[in-house]
Amino acid sequence: MIGPATYFRPEHRAGLDHRTRELIDRRERVLSPGYRLFYDQPLEFVRGSGTKLYTREGHEYLDVYNNVPSVGHAHPRVTAAIAEQAALINTHTRYLHEGLIDYAELLLASFPPALDTLTLVCTGSEANDLALRVAKRATGHRGIIVTENAYHGVTSEIAAISPSLGGIDSLADWVRTVRPPTDDGTAMLQDVRTAIAEVQATGHGVAAMIVDTAFASDGFIAPSPGTRAALAQVQALVHAAGGLVIADEVQPGFGRLGATEAEPGLWGFLRHGLDPDLVTIGKPMANGLPVAGVVARRDLMAAFGERERYFNTFAGTPVSVAAARATWDVLHDEQLPQHAARIGAELRASLRELAARHDRLRAPRGSGLYLAVDIVDATSGAPDSRTAVALVSALRQRRILISASGRENASLKLRPPLPFSSADAARFASELDAALGEVGPPD
Amino acid sequence: MIGPATYFRPEHRAGLDHRTRELIDRRERVLSPGYRLFYDQPLEFVRGSGTKLYTREGHEYLDVYNNVPSVGHAHPRVTAAIAEQAALINTHTRYLHEGLIDYAELLLASFPPALDTLTLVCTGSEANDLALRVAKRATGHRGIIVTENAYHGVTSEIAAISPSLGGIDSLADWVRTVRPPTDDGTAMLQDVRTAIAEVQATGHGVAAMIVDTAFASDGFIAPSPGTRAALAQVQALVHAAGGLVIADEVQPGFGRLGATEAEPGLWGFLRHGLDPDLVTIGKPMANGLPVAGVVARRDLMAAFGERERYFNTFAGTPVSVAAARATWDVLHDEQLPQHAARIGAELRASLRELAARHDRLRAPRGSGLYLAVDIVDATSGAPDSRTAVALVSALRQRRILISASGRENASLKLRPPLPFSSADAARFASELDAALGEVGPPD
Repeated sequence: MIGPATYFRPEHRAGLDHRTRELIDRRERVLSPGYRLFYDQPLEFVRGSGTKLYTREGHEYLDVYNNVPSVGHAHPRVTAAIAEQAALINTHTRYLHEGLIDYAELLLASFPPALDTLTLVCTGSEANDLALRVAKRATGHRGIIVTENAYHGVTSEIAAISPSLGGIDSLADWVRTVRPPTDDGTAMLQDVRTAIAEVQATGHGVAAMIVDTAFASDGFIAPSPGTRAALAQVQALVHAAGGLVIADEVQPGFGRLGATEAEPGLWGFLRHGLDPDLVTIGKPMANGLPVAGVVARRDLMAAFGERERYFNTFAGTPVSVAAARATWDVLHDEQLPQHAARIGAELRASLRELAARHDRLRAPRGSGLYLAVDIVDATSGAPDSRTAVALVSALRQRRILISASGRENASLKLRPPLPFSSADAARFASELDAALGEVGPPD
Repeated sequence: MIGPATYFRPEHRAGLDHRTRELIDRRERVLSPGYRLFYDQPLEFVRGSGTKLYTREGHEYLDVYNNVPSVGHAHPRVTAAIAEQAALINTHTRYLHEGLIDYAELLLASFPPALDTLTLVCTGSEANDLALRVAKRATGHRGIIVTENAYHGVTSEIAAISPSLGGIDSLADWVRTVRPPTDDGTAMLQDVRTAIAEVQATGHGVAAMIVDTAFASDGFIAPSPGTRAALAQVQALVHAAGGLVIADEVQPGFGRLGATEAEPGLWGFLRHGLDPDLVTIGKPMANGLPVAGVVARRDLMAAFGERERYFNTFAGTPVSVAAARATWDVLHDEQLPQHAARIGAELRASLRELAARHDRLRAPRGSGLYLAVDIVDATSGAPDSRTAVALVSALRQRRILISASGRENASLKLRPPLPFSSADAARFASELDAALGEVGPPD
């Protein structure tokens, strides 16, 4: 989650050029006050290509922020697929459409055999909302276990299991939070035991534990032998209590974490050794069109389907599927998951080198092209949100797009489009180096 | 809602051609058992244009069913707008994008001045889910009042206020149902009084009453002086209890009910004399791309925004907005709301003429191009679901797409793309006439 300090605020208005000020004034008159703009000096992009975005004046920005256009902004193959299909037909899943079947077959082949059933929806929030409905119906239980700073989406149900949105007080009474698997995962294991006991004692029972498999909002926890062992025990406890395990792959999925010979595959749960009952997918799935889904064990969807009706008008339509299929094809033809692993390693090496020279920069965490770098006070080592936010602004001036994130809003979050090149990584490292020289107290 | 009897079932498999059987077998292996296909002999469409859909073999079907491609299947202006924007850029609402602002200004100008604030989402379900979150936050109450056969969507929260999905037992304990404003609306008024008293007695209070302004799943209730007076009183009662009124325009909105000099405008609530606090919109908004929204009083969105964070990744993106804008432009340039009123009147006249000749057909209900026709037993006058379903199948054989709907699944529901022509209406009436001659007992 991105902290408020990187957003435009009314006091920034005076410093803006005429056009930007006018657009913002018009925008604020018609859109909800909840809409926010990035930066003291908001940006208007009119064109994108690969990892670059261009303003109306033609200025080029390097995108180190946007994870949705995962195979690159305005990828010509995705664009062509959308245009071609939109010109033909765009109905719904109650007529036959071969493209949907082809895509479902391809997608499911990337999952373990037990995860053999696809349901398409439009957003990651809808995917997690449906996964919870299925889990509650299939188990007959209501209790949900989440990590302590989890974010899973914005429907009423999913906001009520997302402590990163509104804090612990915003959660429903059938939700319990647990520490993420930092260190060896002992704390998480202990918390899960307590959480299970509590939801059982209150009569809710355990419907599911849901985890973002990058643990991004909980601090980007990469797997280790210790965390794998702990998560295996956690999973066994949840299953023993009659609950299900839901892997939220909305952000980490589709290869962002990188694929190597040792860790192949597109999904974060594989890296953690998890064996989930349901998996939710979304954001990068169709490179920006609203496409998301739930991949599940067939028996769970059958149990749900016997009692509940579910039809999502806009999901699995020919145009959505054409975009998803083209995105899938580009991801594989351009070997972007492998590329993400390679460039991610280069980027981490550059950042470690920078961290060795800048006391305010910690070594990066994360995998592939989904990284976080903590900004700290050079003396105390405490998280330094002020400097992190100043760096985001300084990098914007240097035409690099990035965000501050984390519980303290003191980390830089890197999640560029996957075609991010060695040159892009070098440009980012060089600009960050320069920005660190400009911002806040000297190292 | 469409009853199960018009869907494909396993026992129909034997009668299918090889390709259809193979597609269905593949589809059933990968998609959730909850997915359904229309018809004993499911259809595979590969192309659409205006009000016509075409199979792989080139057979033309007249579409009297699909309300989402509202300005016509694969409308070239909408298709071109999508293709053009997708080739340029498709980011999100945290950068400036003039197209979003232009569209919001146009759209809001079609609402009463107090409804001055737009929030975009991706689906009608998300729109109603957000409207409920806003209503609950703004009022501090939890109780929701719906009509007795209401359908508002499929998120956990919205399924729990949609009795048409799972019956009264599937509703949350903070939901109360009321009869729709049939006849003079006295029954609804009485039920609303009771519902308010009950949610107040149970401590929930009244957060909102939400109504589909075509009352489609409750039987297509057109306004009359009596219902207008009753709804005004209902609205006053809800407001007096501290609750809000939400108009669900997801299906009736954007001109489907027709626009005339006496009843201009795009929205059903205007016809009923309602003055809602929030309005939800969706389905036809972008002719098939996942675009929906909440239009609300600014103070409500401000109250929500002060306490809650809401960001919808895929909503209000440049491609979504380009599709919505092109749809809006076509709707107005081709005067489709006015056309819907005119052709709807022709269609109703034809149906009345048919009803005079066929005892099993009742006179149509509804407005514009959103109509229902009840099928009854000629002797008893009771709803006749078997014949309604047989008519849907007989019309499919005659290359007309339609559905059976209603609480008894004994009504034909007509909601074609809005460019439905006089010739289309005549073709439909003629084929229905012939189908009535083929199906079930003689008149």
